[in-house]
Amino acid sequence: GDELLIGQIVNTNSAWLAAELTAMGFSVRSHLSISDSAGEITSALDSALGCCELVIFTGGLGPTNDDITKKVLADYFGMKMVLSEALLERLDRLLQNAGFSMNDKNREQAMIPEGCSIIENSHGTAPGMWFERGGRVVISLPGVPREMKGIFGDQLKERLPAFFSLDRIVYRTLMLTGIAEAVLAGKLEDFEAQLDPAISLAYLPSIGQMRLRLGMRGSDDAAINARLETEIAKIREIVPKYIYGEENEPLAAALGRLMSGRSATMATAESCTGGRAAAGITALPGCSAWFRGGVVAYSNEVKVSALGVEQSVLDEHGAVSGETVVQMAEGARKRLGADYAVATSGIAGPDGGSEAKPVGTVWIAAAGPDFTVKKKFGFGKNRETNIERATAAAYNMLRLAMLGYMGD
Amino acid sequence: GDELLIGQIVNTNSAWLAAELTAMGFSVRSHLSISDSAGEITSALDSALGCCELVIFTGGLGPTNDDITKKVLADYFGMKMVLSEALLERLDRLLQNAGFSMNDKNREQAMIPEGCSIIENSHGTAPGMWFERGGRVVISLPGVPREMKGIFGDQLKERLPAFFSLDRIVYRTLMLTGIAEAVLAGKLEDFEAQLDPAISLAYLPSIGQMRLRLGMRGSDDAAINARLETEIAKIREIVPKYIYGEENEPLAAALGRLMSGRSATMATAESCTGGRAAAGITALPGCSAWFRGGVVAYSNEVKVSALGVEQSVLDEHGAVSGETVVQMAEGARKRLGADYAVATSGIAGPDGGSEAKPVGTVWIAAAGPDFTVKKKFGFGKNRETNIERATAAAYNMLRLAMLGYMGD
Repeated sequence: GDELLIGQIVNTNSAWLAAELTAMGFSVRSHLSISDSAGEITSALDSALGCCELVIFTGGLGPTNDDITKKVLADYFGMKMVLSEALLERLDRLLQNAGFSMNDKNREQAMIPEGCSIIENSHGTAPGMWFERGGRVVISLPGVPREMKGIFGDQLKERLPAFFSLDRIVYRTLMLTGIAEAVLAGKLEDFEAQLDPAISLAYLPSIGQMRLRLGMRGSDDAAINARLETEIAKIREIVPKYIYGEENEPLAAALGRLMSGRSATMATAESCTGGRAAAGITALPGCSAWFRGGVVAYSNEVKVSALGVEQSVLDEHGAVSGETVVQMAEGARKRLGADYAVATSGIAGPDGGSEAKPVGTVWIAAAGPDFTVKKKFGFGKNRETNIERATAAAYNMLRLAMLGYMGD
Repeated sequence: GDELLIGQIVNTNSAWLAAELTAMGFSVRSHLSISDSAGEITSALDSALGCCELVIFTGGLGPTNDDITKKVLADYFGMKMVLSEALLERLDRLLQNAGFSMNDKNREQAMIPEGCSIIENSHGTAPGMWFERGGRVVISLPGVPREMKGIFGDQLKERLPAFFSLDRIVYRTLMLTGIAEAVLAGKLEDFEAQLDPAISLAYLPSIGQMRLRLGMRGSDDAAINARLETEIAKIREIVPKYIYGEENEPLAAALGRLMSGRSATMATAESCTGGRAAAGITALPGCSAWFRGGVVAYSNEVKVSALGVEQSVLDEHGAVSGETVVQMAEGARKRLGADYAVATSGIAGPDGGSEAKPVGTVWIAAAGPDFTVKKKFGFGKNRETNIERATAAAYNMLRLAMLGYMGD
């Protein structure tokens, strides 16, 4: 669609579909974005069917005049448009519930190419369509990501592998933090050497964390899962300290598990992370059971008044110091009535650095009923990245201390 | 690249480049993602050069074996690979500074197709390349978004329009908040009717805000800017209250401008937004001049102890009430020593709703030396969206109150 071509929106449908299709066992050949024009759609279809067994279109199914995909596909497959009474009834009901009445544009939405197979859409008004020719399949789905994903999950996740008799790829993902990619690769060298070549291993790093993904192709899910579980157990033995969870779980959720397991609560005391550590926690549904709250102590006065940091400590050591973050963390425990707390203070940048404390210098502390730990980090020059890395480091420091990895 | 084809990462380069090229006056014909294979690259190039005057590749320029774009382009244009002494020297210097020494892989990075024009990369190690044939241009850029964007800005923003003698499209964007798209479109109906068809108007909504973008094609930037400024002045007159800034400025920056202009400071008191309002402010460089800090008062005890909310108010009206958010905002001003403050308390979901206060109910207050305002909002069912919308509404309530739009 044109909104993609001019860069108004980022195409996230392609990546989502590609990940789903790859997991099903398809090899994805290309992603293509084109304009809403009959010529472009037809020539893209010609060239895609020349090399691929499956072509999926998204978008162009809305009620407005620039949405022409349905008509073009009907022409391509030599089908005439016919009214689907079932679709018309459903549309009428949907519109009535929303307090509208049917107009010509809506009626057009109930027209479908005769001979295609309708893919029901319980997430919106425009259904998907499934065309077949010589064992090759062309599918048309709505462009709205929520509808596209919904239909795919409801209708295609079973139907596509069945039609193409595909082996699935089963994936398992471990979530790690606090270790650099190269260091992890070094520790896993022997593991990788013994790994069955039928099992793929991918390192997927992002800021403050690393996903380690094992994948294996086959038709017997239970057998594959057992094989992968054996390998995952080996990795857990090699790098136990760095693994905080599985399957895309955010790092804050690992803290939630620790707190819930101990019926404990926690709090945050943030200077340089400025609320990001609290926001990462409160993004989790149900966190009120274990998160008491936090203080964003951006100014020194607030560090003193809201967290009880001593003015003399600020004067002597500065706001960015081990002494200050320790008092912040301990103050947060006391003032907010929490069992555990984390604290951050640093220079996020781009300004405010000095020779002794350059931009990226961050002190972090974690405190609990029977420990207080602190550590200095040196991150980079980018404000956004520094805030994100400091947040991950703060979560991880508390996690490690609670698990007994003291002073590591 | 393969990481795109399997959906491991979302292709954001295409949208970014498309927006830049569209603004320059190019019509973008298609975006294509393909694998790192010589056959695929060559056939994509053949078909693209059949219809387009400019083809831009990103990615495939790294030092590893699967990065083959440079070699394939050299073959395509019948160029042999030659060593660039200048590049070799630069690489050597970069590596030495990082404490590494040159290896064969690095040396290969200094090889370039003889006869192409090098596009310097001051953001990384791999340079871009510019090929010409029959007035058509093929450009190869690194895939790392930061490097790609840097090179494009440094080298191509001037060179491309000059080479193709393009009319530019000049865009001006107004940033609005607190108004629904349909309502805005209604208010601007007469404005749109009188608008010169040569000027495009686009509504670009996102959560909690709306961008209104005017665009006009031409070669005389100053004249176009003057034309657009006239139209922008008309819009400002029609909906002054909703316009908080220009050119993609975040809403929090408008608060920063207000604070700086009055040499004032502000603070946040958050329950349901859980630190997001503070984090949005502290994402802005230099905010320490006007942001004192905040309290994330997730539990009622913290609302009482850290913000001075009265227990009797919580007992009588509940945490999600106008009375509570007013005490939170006024408490934040006093306790954190700020001139202004905002406060939020609501039910973000997915659980915790009741018939009287369903999920999405959010009370917001703003307080200053000479006003306190409060308002109840009804957002939706999605936790993430509710937090984002409540944050925008809180910023906007303080902005409006400071500008004298009381009780609106």
